[in-house]
Amino acid sequence: MQFQVTPELIEKIQHLASEQLDQELHRYLKDLHHADIAEIIAAIPPVDAAYIIRLLDSEKTAEILMELYEDDREQILLQLSPQEIAGELDMMDTDDAADFLAELPDEIKGEVIDNIEDDEHAKDLQELLRYDEDSAGGLMAKELIRVREDWPVSECIDEIRRQAENVIRVHSIYVVDKDDKLIGRLSVKDLLTVKSQTKIAEIYIPRVDYVNVHTDGDEVARVMQKYDLEALPVVDEIGKLVGRITIDDIVDFIKEEAEKDYQLAAGISQDVDTNDSFIKQTRARLPWLLLALVGSFVAVLVIGEFDTALERYSRLFFFTPLIAAMAGNVGVQSSAIIVQSIANNTLSDSLSTRLFKELLLSFSSGLLLSLLLLFATHFILNYPISLAITIALSLIIVMIIASLVGTFVPITLHRMGIDPALATGPFITTSNDIFGIFIFFSIARVILEF
Amino acid sequence: MQFQVTPELIEKIQHLASEQLDQELHRYLKDLHHADIAEIIAAIPPVDAAYIIRLLDSEKTAEILMELYEDDREQILLQLSPQEIAGELDMMDTDDAADFLAELPDEIKGEVIDNIEDDEHAKDLQELLRYDEDSAGGLMAKELIRVREDWPVSECIDEIRRQAENVIRVHSIYVVDKDDKLIGRLSVKDLLTVKSQTKIAEIYIPRVDYVNVHTDGDEVARVMQKYDLEALPVVDEIGKLVGRITIDDIVDFIKEEAEKDYQLAAGISQDVDTNDSFIKQTRARLPWLLLALVGSFVAVLVIGEFDTALERYSRLFFFTPLIAAMAGNVGVQSSAIIVQSIANNTLSDSLSTRLFKELLLSFSSGLLLSLLLLFATHFILNYPISLAITIALSLIIVMIIASLVGTFVPITLHRMGIDPALATGPFITTSNDIFGIFIFFSIARVILEF
Repeated sequence: MQFQVTPELIEKIQHLASEQLDQELHRYLKDLHHADIAEIIAAIPPVDAAYIIRLLDSEKTAEILMELYEDDREQILLQLSPQEIAGELDMMDTDDAADFLAELPDEIKGEVIDNIEDDEHAKDLQELLRYDEDSAGGLMAKELIRVREDWPVSECIDEIRRQAENVIRVHSIYVVDKDDKLIGRLSVKDLLTVKSQTKIAEIYIPRVDYVNVHTDGDEVARVMQKYDLEALPVVDEIGKLVGRITIDDIVDFIKEEAEKDYQLAAGISQDVDTNDSFIKQTRARLPWLLLALVGSFVAVLVIGEFDTALERYSRLFFFTPLIAAMAGNVGVQSSAIIVQSIANNTLSDSLSTRLFKELLLSFSSGLLLSLLLLFATHFILNYPISLAITIALSLIIVMIIASLVGTFVPITLHRMGIDPALATGPFITTSNDIFGIFIFFSIARVILEF
Repeated sequence: MQFQVTPELIEKIQHLASEQLDQELHRYLKDLHHADIAEIIAAIPPVDAAYIIRLLDSEKTAEILMELYEDDREQILLQLSPQEIAGELDMMDTDDAADFLAELPDEIKGEVIDNIEDDEHAKDLQELLRYDEDSAGGLMAKELIRVREDWPVSECIDEIRRQAENVIRVHSIYVVDKDDKLIGRLSVKDLLTVKSQTKIAEIYIPRVDYVNVHTDGDEVARVMQKYDLEALPVVDEIGKLVGRITIDDIVDFIKEEAEKDYQLAAGISQDVDTNDSFIKQTRARLPWLLLALVGSFVAVLVIGEFDTALERYSRLFFFTPLIAAMAGNVGVQSSAIIVQSIANNTLSDSLSTRLFKELLLSFSSGLLLSLLLLFATHFILNYPISLAITIALSLIIVMIIASLVGTFVPITLHRMGIDPALATGPFITTSNDIFGIFIFFSIARVILEF
């Protein structure tokens, strides 16, 4: 444990690969975990990486390839022939192999499938490719252990031995009826602790959680987390057992979902990493910045509309960034809380209750902060009281409206089937800037009469 | 599956609990999953919730209590006696029970431990309480299946049957030597597929991943994700097997970590939810808003320092929110990418390489956006070219500096052992506002000579 891949090791391996020193490479790599080899391979040129993939046996390289980020994997695959790629797929679990296949360009997909030796494996892959990748069908693997309710435990154990060869981890043993419909499960523990003459029908647990092939990935993640499941069987439209989803795939899914929210809040498109190319990073970041620039330019136009205030109340203009920033901060806070509650399925209030709560919260916080600001502008900056009151009053009104918008927007987006996390991104903060500034100057115009 | 707790069901259960209609309650609750009962219990008054906890048997209620959010649980526990709480703890796995104990007020903790019937369980809990809650020791459970290398498989199976009573899920069977030191593992699959005369020493797998009791939770999560582990044994300082961590606990840990980053970015303190009280929500949100207000007030002071520009270049002041917003947006983008790379352990560049990349990225995006802005201010708003150039030049310089700061700060925080996600929160965006505005007016002063 605590093994770390060092830059020296990466350099050494790359040197050995480019010099094609097979024996030494084997010596270095044989005791490394596939995840560590993946880390090394991602850091060296694709041609050397492909050399190592060809050198090691397929069982190990299949695991290595699955560990890589999609971009790195693509670079390496470009170096391999369809036959070589098919050899890797043969060794993968169906769920991983299907994801892997889905990434390949269409023109070589067919050729790769034709080159897969195990026909049943190839058929399973074609089935999995039909499902949406974020549905239960797209997340599941075909490998699982199934036993028939009318078998005795002894036959069952033989069958499990046979089936277990294809299943890396035995989580649960699923029990089906004669039509292959899922009717229950056997726990491994039960199997270890009953006599071998017992019939499956007597000992199986008839309660089993399952999902349909078309169930959404979010819902699968929610169910597995809520009920602390490590594997979840998947049935087709008529209740036949067709696959199972394991927790390790869902861990990745949960992490990606959480990251997506974070990235939306920060105004970057998904899946961009410090190691990505200049082009990819720019593509992920520039659109949001452009949007923010256009929005901010609208704010400039709004401010320009109030230029009659410049003569007597020029100091109002010193406060536009403050009002805009506070509108943005309050709005993002409100939205983020809603977004998380939606993600965690804890949003139990109705929209009106929620808006009322936000009204109370933002009014009380706004009142306190406005009084502080009133004090600071009047007593520290020596602004006339009318000007100080205008600014303070605008702050509380802008805060209340921003918090209501910040609550309303994500709930509404969610109801419309749009990712509510969008509401914490630059799109909404920029809108908040614009209307915050507009409200500020409108209030000022009414009070100060310019 | 697809069962959903409805408001009608919650109301019905609350009614039955307040009327103490035990038989009907049992009828409704007996087929519900503990996670669903937890959802119901969280939504009804604590006194009714406690009534239900007393009514159901401890095995089920222990699971229900563990599903609840800490706040809801605390409310219900206040209704129970130390003896009743001890009864719940008796039925929990040690890791859950220890977390649960840690939440209790110190004055009743001792009394609860004294009331636990199973002495060994009580001793295990006291041991677990000694570890930091975010360390491997704090995350692990004492329940696991261990076998000695010198046993035959038959003895091993008997022993597993005995030990398995305390272990809900058999993940791996750990192999220890005569000093109880961890030396390897047996997979369940192997055990199902070898003959009973075989000795453990012949069939165990000597390679086993493990962590030390003091290993940090982040590292545990990283190792379990990287190597796709579902259970990880924990050893003490001298290599003795003392516990194991299962993936379900780590799923919660990973989710909490990702949420923490998101919340920091949105300027709310951890662990606040739409259902939390007014006071708790205000406590989570007001400090950040106060900080942002103070920061924005400093920005007002900075702008005020440049009031000599008001006479001839008042339109500069229309652009302060735009410059501040763009500085904020660019800074958050840069920081968010670094924060995620740190979290995913993919930050392989040195600080200087990273800063150079950011320089390129922000220069090219900044150049494009500046030219757009130059065009818009000069040709759409008809600003004189000197003013338009001043604003556009400021934009690109502010964007470059904000992106460098956004890169530097999280990397530096991380090196100092501080959570880098702080760098995406209001603290940094407010600082970006201030220096963005300062740079803007300083450049304007040099070019326009006011």
